[in-house]
Amino acid sequence: MELFTAIHTRPSCRDFLDDDIEKDLIEKIIEAGIMAPSPLNSQPWNFIVIKSPTVKDHLFEDAQKCKATAVEISGWKWLETYSVNFLKTAPVIIVVTGDKTKSGVDQFNEDGPVAYQHACAAAIQNMLLAAHALGIGSVWFTLFDKNSVKALLNIDDNKVPLAFVCLGKPAGESAKTSRKPLAKKTIFME
Amino acid sequence: MELFTAIHTRPSCRDFLDDDIEKDLIEKIIEAGIMAPSPLNSQPWNFIVIKSPTVKDHLFEDAQKCKATAVEISGWKWLETYSVNFLKTAPVIIVVTGDKTKSGVDQFNEDGPVAYQHACAAAIQNMLLAAHALGIGSVWFTLFDKNSVKALLNIDDNKVPLAFVCLGKPAGESAKTSRKPLAKKTIFME
Repeated sequence: MELFTAIHTRPSCRDFLDDDIEKDLIEKIIEAGIMAPSPLNSQPWNFIVIKSPTVKDHLFEDAQKCKATAVEISGWKWLETYSVNFLKTAPVIIVVTGDKTKSGVDQFNEDGPVAYQHACAAAIQNMLLAAHALGIGSVWFTLFDKNSVKALLNIDDNKVPLAFVCLGKPAGESAKTSRKPLAKKTIFME
Repeated sequence: MELFTAIHTRPSCRDFLDDDIEKDLIEKIIEAGIMAPSPLNSQPWNFIVIKSPTVKDHLFEDAQKCKATAVEISGWKWLETYSVNFLKTAPVIIVVTGDKTKSGVDQFNEDGPVAYQHACAAAIQNMLLAAHALGIGSVWFTLFDKNSVKALLNIDDNKVPLAFVCLGKPAGESAKTSRKPLAKKTIFME
């Protein structure tokens, strides 16, 4: 797929078919992630590929709890209706973790390192584009409790689970989201 | 350019020709950024396009100071030899800012919001890929003092300068950086 087509037509997909995703496609998606830039080329990402229904059930239950807490804290009633069922129906979930010791100069920041997270986000964007080009739908999900996911997946202390990339063949056409145009977002200081 | 070619061949470029970059190419690059996903489609990004040699000189001077501080704090002597001249030679620098009030549920985090930064990082990755596909070299730069850049560019209080995307026609072949392979970065928990 042509790059700009991929960038401009990639939807978030939350409705997946049961079909499994072949391992070589999962690897192509992760290899795209790995090509992102990172501070001092520290490559702070790691990937955990989950297909187990039991593990996905745990992730779903955790997300349900997180959602309930978020509704309480935010007062956003509408959030109750936001379904996270896709955590059960997505045939594959890739948990992306970031290693906070791999953050370049940023590791000396007073407020703690964050550049490693930016690099992982860039990797995730590559993964979403790659999935789309391969005919696989994806959604970037973050409504989970980091500590609970760390415990469930035995993640090292230095590594922070940053996102779930949920993947599967799309069950239908995914809704497109609009964007504010460049003119509202850009200042030309030439 | 084909998506996987763009992802796998994009180098970081720090050596630019003087040639100006046409406005429509800059717009294509920003429009690619704008297509990134964001929490609740909050689109937390803003872009400041800089061509002024005076402003670039200020950014360069600020980066020099930051580098000196970083050398001191880190004890990394080698960092002294890392040239940030590209801040003066890149014909265009796009400063990407993130609006911390646009971070979705994450705005209620105890540790403060960070998802808006992830969305901006995804936008930046789109921009780097778009630039590459258009024959424009780019580098993602973060060694600057946020407060100093905010003051220089009159950036609103809610907005945080997250990165400079330096752009220009490449002066030569950019060095490729290696990556650790998927097998060292991935656990299949199937």
